[in-house]
Amino acid sequence: MDDIQRLLIERACERLVLQFAQYNDYKENDALAALFTDDCEFARPLDPTHPYYGRTAVGNIFRNRKPIMTQHVMTNILIEVVSEDEARGRSYVTMISNPDPDRSTPKEGGGIFFGAFDDVFVRTAEGWKFKKRIGSVALHQGGHIPQMPPATDEERGITK
Amino acid sequence: MDDIQRLLIERACERLVLQFAQYNDYKENDALAALFTDDCEFARPLDPTHPYYGRTAVGNIFRNRKPIMTQHVMTNILIEVVSEDEARGRSYVTMISNPDPDRSTPKEGGGIFFGAFDDVFVRTAEGWKFKKRIGSVALHQGGHIPQMPPATDEERGITK
Amino acid sequence: MDDIQRLLIERACERLVLQFAQYNDYKENDALAALFTDDCEFARPLDPTHPYYGRTAVGNIFRNRKPIMTQHVMTNILIEVVSEDEARGRSYVTMISNPDPDRSTPKEGGGIFFGAFDDVFVRTAEGWKFKKRIGSVALHQGGHIPQMPPATDEERGITK
Repeated sequence: MDDIQRLLIERACERLVLQFAQYNDYKENDALAALFTDDCEFARPLDPTHPYYGRTAVGNIFRNRKPIMTQHVMTNILIEVVSEDEARGRSYVTMISNPDPDRSTPKEGGGIFFGAFDDVFVRTAEGWKFKKRIGSVALHQGGHIPQMPPATDEERGITK
Repeated sequence: MDDIQRLLIERACERLVLQFAQYNDYKENDALAALFTDDCEFARPLDPTHPYYGRTAVGNIFRNRKPIMTQHVMTNILIEVVSEDEARGRSYVTMISNPDPDRSTPKEGGGIFFGAFDDVFVRTAEGWKFKKRIGSVALHQGGHIPQMPPATDEERGITK
Repeated sequence: MDDIQRLLIERACERLVLQFAQYNDYKENDALAALFTDDCEFARPLDPTHPYYGRTAVGNIFRNRKPIMTQHVMTNILIEVVSEDEARGRSYVTMISNPDPDRSTPKEGGGIFFGAFDDVFVRTAEGWKFKKRIGSVALHQGGHIPQMPPATDEERGITK
């Protein structure tokens, strides 16, 4: 693989990371789900040890949640190309939110949360997708860490 | 258009977004104005519904304002190439400031503001420029949303 | 130099900036030291006027410090290619930390600090490296600016 091929793969994966944030913040839930492979694994930053499995279960997280206003500030996107069809990456996320979903007037946030996503990307027939995306939170300034209600196995796409 | 041409356009537009922030924060006002087309439209994040028209009016915003210290943290820069001569993009801005313009010693900020810019870029004889740049603010942590004094039509480049 | 060569150099330097942050936050101290040239100059953001000289002295800053948890959020990475073997750049850093190094549960930070790095990059036989990296802090929200204990000439790599 030459440097230009590598650069194009890095760019494709970087775009997934940015699209995840924008689709999330602007409530484009179907487009958000389409960033993942059918057989993906995804863990939310506030609950990294209870991943969700499969595009449908992941999409439902966003379709079914309360429509709060969020801003996912994505930085430090560092991609390592493994092969023509696989890459890995880590990026940092800085998140702030308000329960009122109306973006038209500025609102006070409930603390700023600093975390990361550890990603595995694969090339599919429909282009590059998230195969695995594991979030985590390391620090916050203001606010407090919310208690996430536990998801059921069914919600998490776990079939017995 | 091939992937490499697309990548080079994305990069050119991404650089405009970053230069806007650095020229703004380091008070390079003429260089800042030169990032816009002659016939540009620009709305400040705190006053998105009262845009300024034309490079001269936009440049004067920065030339005539009080020389406060600002830091415009730019992230999530996602560019969509429309053609060889046009692109669109959204980026996130996280802003903090202090009334004292002296950058040589650290100062406490007056709150952190989280917003976005929605951009239209065009290729001109002098390279890629902002044709349209509409700011907005969604959230803040600490501080309060300042009241912007209304600009006159003349200041906004509106000729009757 | 054509646009693609320039883009590849920008990308190489951008990766150094991102690796500096990740190696720093994830305590990969040897990998961090290897980002610098043998004869580098490095000034920490909180003490920009007392630079360290040489890869060994720079690596020792990180090897010998208390293992606090940090998150270095890197943004606004703007690289200017000077030649095939040299580039310059400025990037913004937003930093938050907690004295407890355990990243496995989220912790409250001690303020958010906003600064910049001014960099000189050079191409070496082992790829692109930091030749010079001068940090600075402009603003903070919450917390207070820590007093850095003065480093000795020996620690700073200054030989009489």
